[in-house]
Amino acid sequence: MRTSRLEAFSDGVLAIIITIMVLELAVPEGHDLSALVHETGVGLLTYLLSFVYVGIYWNNHHHMFHLVQRINGGVLWANLALLFSLSLFPFTTAWVDESRFAQTPVVVYGLNLLAASAAYLVLQKVIISQEGPSSPLHAAIGSDVKGKVSTALYLGGVLCAVLISDSGPWIAVGCFVSAAVLWIVPDRRIDRAVREVSVGDGASR
Amino acid sequence: MRTSRLEAFSDGVLAIIITIMVLELAVPEGHDLSALVHETGVGLLTYLLSFVYVGIYWNNHHHMFHLVQRINGGVLWANLALLFSLSLFPFTTAWVDESRFAQTPVVVYGLNLLAASAAYLVLQKVIISQEGPSSPLHAAIGSDVKGKVSTALYLGGVLCAVLISDSGPWIAVGCFVSAAVLWIVPDRRIDRAVREVSVGDGASR
Amino acid sequence: MRTSRLEAFSDGVLAIIITIMVLELAVPEGHDLSALVHETGVGLLTYLLSFVYVGIYWNNHHHMFHLVQRINGGVLWANLALLFSLSLFPFTTAWVDESRFAQTPVVVYGLNLLAASAAYLVLQKVIISQEGPSSPLHAAIGSDVKGKVSTALYLGGVLCAVLISDSGPWIAVGCFVSAAVLWIVPDRRIDRAVREVSVGDGASR
Amino acid sequence: MRTSRLEAFSDGVLAIIITIMVLELAVPEGHDLSALVHETGVGLLTYLLSFVYVGIYWNNHHHMFHLVQRINGGVLWANLALLFSLSLFPFTTAWVDESRFAQTPVVVYGLNLLAASAAYLVLQKVIISQEGPSSPLHAAIGSDVKGKVSTALYLGGVLCAVLISDSGPWIAVGCFVSAAVLWIVPDRRIDRAVREVSVGDGASR
Repeated sequence: MRTSRLEAFSDGVLAIIITIMVLELAVPEGHDLSALVHETGVGLLTYLLSFVYVGIYWNNHHHMFHLVQRINGGVLWANLALLFSLSLFPFTTAWVDESRFAQTPVVVYGLNLLAASAAYLVLQKVIISQEGPSSPLHAAIGSDVKGKVSTALYLGGVLCAVLISDSGPWIAVGCFVSAAVLWIVPDRRIDRAVREVSVGDGASR
Repeated sequence: MRTSRLEAFSDGVLAIIITIMVLELAVPEGHDLSALVHETGVGLLTYLLSFVYVGIYWNNHHHMFHLVQRINGGVLWANLALLFSLSLFPFTTAWVDESRFAQTPVVVYGLNLLAASAAYLVLQKVIISQEGPSSPLHAAIGSDVKGKVSTALYLGGVLCAVLISDSGPWIAVGCFVSAAVLWIVPDRRIDRAVREVSVGDGASR
Repeated sequence: MRTSRLEAFSDGVLAIIITIMVLELAVPEGHDLSALVHETGVGLLTYLLSFVYVGIYWNNHHHMFHLVQRINGGVLWANLALLFSLSLFPFTTAWVDESRFAQTPVVVYGLNLLAASAAYLVLQKVIISQEGPSSPLHAAIGSDVKGKVSTALYLGGVLCAVLISDSGPWIAVGCFVSAAVLWIVPDRRIDRAVREVSVGDGASR
Repeated sequence: MRTSRLEAFSDGVLAIIITIMVLELAVPEGHDLSALVHETGVGLLTYLLSFVYVGIYWNNHHHMFHLVQRINGGVLWANLALLFSLSLFPFTTAWVDESRFAQTPVVVYGLNLLAASAAYLVLQKVIISQEGPSSPLHAAIGSDVKGKVSTALYLGGVLCAVLISDSGPWIAVGCFVSAAVLWIVPDRRIDRAVREVSVGDGASR
């Protein structure tokens, strides 16, 4: 099987996930700026964070399947598992927003990030195990510094939110924002470093 | 007519069906774990089941049209009938969830599964009758053990839910979960058996 | 400009229109069959009718652009006008359903059908005027019996609903259902007749 | 990277944005024409305006990527920023509608138009800076009279809504409608003028 229809379906699902979150934004009952800030301000920032995360996954999915030629049934299901975990973002985002960053919703949001991250790794492994040792994806991944750092940030955030009673959820949100920034901003320095490490890895294999 | 645009349209509809079900997940009013479990727990599992079913249909649709070259008006309408029956899943899923697996909603959910299954078979027949005896799809289907077993499970589930008053709906849900598992898990053993049976069938034809 | 991206965008919009209507289906508050019939029965039939209409438009759109090679800005906007009129179906369908086929909502539904029909004709004319006398679409349309009969049915339905006080809306719905049936069922007899007429027309031109 | 998947994803997101706005249209509680006019009339016009704007952006996006061959990570993120700003239209449209064109919501709608316009310009600049001096997009843009006039109209509208207390919001809406008309109607005169200016610009470079 070729990847084109899997990509088209994933694009469709990701496009819907990234867009329907805006339906959760409550239209303010008041008609002035303070109503907007108080009733929708937090929701807007949470929406932005989740939009960026779905964007990151679309971006990575796009890059990953760029290196994949053929797929089997296992890849289809691993891809669906990733889409399922991402499809929960509108729900966890709405809960975090509605609760104004209460402890449990923030922990659940972090677990959602961890689940998506795990599903992505599983998808990667399934593709590589299907392609065998000559897999171009395997060669391209390298040490995956970004993936490891962001998983550590999600885990750290969840632990902070669980253990530290008052400011924990805010530290957690700080971790989640940092992990997102890590994936967007450094298309210069870290990318080059990662690329060099990967090339080194690829060469040493 | 070529199949590309029918596939793109079906991908779009299936992507929307599989994703908008998450909008039915009620955001818990409480902000702790027990609120999540009590208010959304059942909904999450029902969502997962329906997600898997739409995923199975996308998967099978993908495989089926892999073998189809050209289509006529009849195929377009049979495909729309399948999409219609699948588009009812967000509705039947929400009812099952909201009623906490009451008898009638579970029966209706099972009838929805049966309707989708019947629409899929009709689509298959329309394609084969259009392609004639040399149809590659006809040769590939074989005895369709999986299809028959899962239809029996849907039917058995519906009957259990109708006839057995207390535990009937739960036996039905067990049947529906089993049929879903049948389509996902056994990409090794049963697939090989099915393939051998099909090959045998194909050879004996 | 080539037509591929216009087709992909139209497929996306039509896929969403045809699917989000299911979100308007109210989940019954009761958990038995009578609750389903009374609270959702009418909605289900209205949804089916609108689903079929959007399906007809997708079908015709698909056939039309099959004959189109290149497009200009006017075609893009005429296509968007068609998509806009079709995007109102979820709204008019919900109103018809919620009012249980009251007079005004049925008239508005009929006007929506007329608007979509007019937008489709405009799109056709814009394409043909852009392509000039050698347009393959022009040659293929022929006398467009189906289009004329269905426009007459929409118009007749709207007039019945306006003029006849009690049974008018029901006659109108009968007209709308008949027009839909006209587009689905007769892929044998009428199609052949239409085709012969078209061929005759094409030859005499 | 090639542009096909970015275009498909953008098409998906734009198709969803343009369509889900119809879900915000409140179904009238009454069943007569006055209920429709009073409860949905304003909403319908606001929906039409936002539909046209998303249509304009899809149109321009389509034209822009027609001239782009390859993209990098920066283009992906600039494109996502454009999609994010456009994804806020369902929200700002619903607020403008619900408030019946109150001052603050109209200002926020205008800022949304400005944000989308700015994101579009940034996307253009990122593409051109990636492609270097031989960029076909750079040559095609020319003096971008339309872009400048419409930005001035958005800005003027926002200022009017802020400064003029009573009729300000209505002048603003007039500005926003004019800017939309500017992009649709003049596919003859202004287009030719713009084209000549662009050709002149292109030649003088």
